[in-house]
Amino acid sequence: MNRRLFTFVGGDAGNWRVVSTNTVIGDPLPEVQKLQIVAGSDFPTEPPGWLLRGITSNERYVIREEKNQLLDKQQGLGRPEASFAALIPIRKTASWWALTQDERRTILEEHSQHIKIGLHYLPAIARRLHHCRDLSENEPFDFITWFEFAPAHEAEFNQLVDKLRTSEEWKYVDREIDFRLVLDGC
Amino acid sequence: MNRRLFTFVGGDAGNWRVVSTNTVIGDPLPEVQKLQIVAGSDFPTEPPGWLLRGITSNERYVIREEKNQLLDKQQGLGRPEASFAALIPIRKTASWWALTQDERRTILEEHSQHIKIGLHYLPAIARRLHHCRDLSENEPFDFITWFEFAPAHEAEFNQLVDKLRTSEEWKYVDREIDFRLVLDGC
Repeated sequence: MNRRLFTFVGGDAGNWRVVSTNTVIGDPLPEVQKLQIVAGSDFPTEPPGWLLRGITSNERYVIREEKNQLLDKQQGLGRPEASFAALIPIRKTASWWALTQDERRTILEEHSQHIKIGLHYLPAIARRLHHCRDLSENEPFDFITWFEFAPAHEAEFNQLVDKLRTSEEWKYVDREIDFRLVLDGC
Repeated sequence: MNRRLFTFVGGDAGNWRVVSTNTVIGDPLPEVQKLQIVAGSDFPTEPPGWLLRGITSNERYVIREEKNQLLDKQQGLGRPEASFAALIPIRKTASWWALTQDERRTILEEHSQHIKIGLHYLPAIARRLHHCRDLSENEPFDFITWFEFAPAHEAEFNQLVDKLRTSEEWKYVDREIDFRLVLDGC
């Protein structure tokens, strides 16, 4: 089976070491030392810190031309040089979710250039987007994005998130935490 | 809390009586006599037949103009005269889910008039759409739609589903079951 569901377990185990935790907006999560990423949702023991689940899904906004550019430029997770990572769970407001598809697309891309900004930082920044909102009625976040990059590209990654956070789309973000991580042994 | 998650329990209990079960395409489900609809996912006992879960979510295709027409014309579930119902779970192919947003929208509306056809049968036919695909990796269907209408509008409801089933969009449906139900005591 092609796994779609991933569990991010914050605690004292895992091969990613948490080097900073920045609560950008909304409620924080308990500080943890390590992160473990598990395929599926069957995490065997009680998490010592927190546990976030997300599922990869069909794209909601990209049009064919953008998709082809993404496919052409993007690289996968797990590159040996990509020893830096960021885990950024976000939640959007009820007013965002009440918008229609065309209104959300206009804000996300025509006004905020979310897709174009992401494209600009490919292939340096690899990412996997996980959807949470429709896993249950009570998810703490709507999306979890996992990013991987080489240490040399950290400044570019910071530019990327800065651009998004000042965009019109981000006015609809009411919870966001930015965890930065380093691969164990790096 | 505004409930979004619903469980449809097919068995020998519930206030909707199953009067027909038509497997349109794909694998059937066991035949059952009754249907119970439960808010949330905590169904206390082992279901005697089957159990399908779905979650209401943001709209994926309608644009503002269509949304305004829908809001203007549609009526809610639970109308006293609406003693007939249909439960139609469907699954779409992997090729559907691999399309981009603009490609899916083109097929769904510009080629298949899914939204326009639905609008035509308002307010007679009330509906609630539930998403299943992102509840887990292993859901048996992608969507569950629940329809309610008065007995006098049954022929129109049949027209509606016939139109959709002959549309280009339905070429991407690889599992569909059409349950028809009558409210107990009617």
